[in-house]
Amino acid sequence: MNDKPLILITNDDGVKAPGIRALIRYIRPFGNIVVVAPDRPQSGTAHAVTIAHPLRLELIASEPGYEEYSCNGTPADCVKLAFKIVMKRRPDFLFSGINHGTNASINIVYSGTMAAVLEGALAGVPSVGFSLNNYSQHADFGPAEEFVKTIATKVISGGLPSGVCLNVNLPAVPAADIRGIKLCRQANGTWEEDFDEREDPHGHKYYWMKGVYAQIGKGEDTDQWAVENNYVAVVPVQFDLTAYQTLELLRERF
Amino acid sequence: MNDKPLILITNDDGVKAPGIRALIRYIRPFGNIVVVAPDRPQSGTAHAVTIAHPLRLELIASEPGYEEYSCNGTPADCVKLAFKIVMKRRPDFLFSGINHGTNASINIVYSGTMAAVLEGALAGVPSVGFSLNNYSQHADFGPAEEFVKTIATKVISGGLPSGVCLNVNLPAVPAADIRGIKLCRQANGTWEEDFDEREDPHGHKYYWMKGVYAQIGKGEDTDQWAVENNYVAVVPVQFDLTAYQTLELLRERF
Repeated sequence: MNDKPLILITNDDGVKAPGIRALIRYIRPFGNIVVVAPDRPQSGTAHAVTIAHPLRLELIASEPGYEEYSCNGTPADCVKLAFKIVMKRRPDFLFSGINHGTNASINIVYSGTMAAVLEGALAGVPSVGFSLNNYSQHADFGPAEEFVKTIATKVISGGLPSGVCLNVNLPAVPAADIRGIKLCRQANGTWEEDFDEREDPHGHKYYWMKGVYAQIGKGEDTDQWAVENNYVAVVPVQFDLTAYQTLELLRERF
Repeated sequence: MNDKPLILITNDDGVKAPGIRALIRYIRPFGNIVVVAPDRPQSGTAHAVTIAHPLRLELIASEPGYEEYSCNGTPADCVKLAFKIVMKRRPDFLFSGINHGTNASINIVYSGTMAAVLEGALAGVPSVGFSLNNYSQHADFGPAEEFVKTIATKVISGGLPSGVCLNVNLPAVPAADIRGIKLCRQANGTWEEDFDEREDPHGHKYYWMKGVYAQIGKGEDTDQWAVENNYVAVVPVQFDLTAYQTLELLRERF
């Protein structure tokens, strides 16, 4: 290879998803690319890692400056295998996505796309996750191109603070309607689950999970507000979950 | 039932694990208990949720003030099903564990035990995860009893701040050596993975994940330090991952 940066690309929708194919097209001009992505959809896997089963890699494509592998593991597994087995070193940058569906607000907690990004940040690699606010397999990723390239340029030229990665959520609207990039905090919200209760042919009940997102508060400084109002939401994300504001309060009780 | 609090107990090691059997024994005097736990070990599942397969519940035990179910899903699935299907309401408290192995430091990110706890906190339920610093199936949970009961008493009598749950890590030493409860922040550390590369009988390579924990820094205010020094570490945990300290710094660039 040459002196271009080494860039890892992954996702959680699987290596064949239109979202990662778009991300590969947009990022490829920036460096030498290694793709290691799940061999099937892994949405909702969060930060799961595979310790009870062996992992396998399959080489899909290899050409100068480009290698692509599928893996039978989770997004976090893909990143760990990429660093240790495929690349034999940490890459210079990691980009994950483009996810089919939003990872704004509390969705980050369930997201395999963002778990891969956190895994990169944990290893000291400047890492960014991209998600489009449209779950469809036929979503139009075209309007995302300009913003993915702009954000990649900024991160590749300036890096990111240590221990911080970016959660980027793109509105699913025509390019002309996108109002620009907005730095945000994570919105407060939850999924209000419900379950479809059904009965199998043997008379046993089973349940399909479904749910609706419920926003808590309306802050215009949040990623959820930004995406709903046609901004590209950028949230700096860390992996220290300590609730520092309650440490002193609780110290009196414990 | 009566006016005792309604308490959900779950874990990620599976409903048969000695850790959850100990937790059930310690917590049962505090209220009416519902156990909904995975039907098999789910360590490392993190916050995964099951959307591609149907979920099933199996009633294992039912007596006055006590019901126990196993579920084919993840810890987060167990909590969602418990709220919506089993209890038909949110419980008053949620306790998860006792995990076989530490969830101090970065382990929280991979932990199904703590995902269940976050799921409780997201629904507004005061929730606590307990983990013992010993991965063995034959670990001695006895010395944990006093501290589990003390912490449960404090949480049941005084609640927890909204949006905050507790990550409790217990040292695996005799009761006489435990130096007390210490309120802490999450330690900074990573898993340095390695992979055992092997070849199957058909000549294809496969990989087993393994790794060692690497501490970054030595803070005596961290959960990792506390557990290693025979304290019961209590960390208040939130689910807002925004890196607030870098928001202004990044605002100049995005």
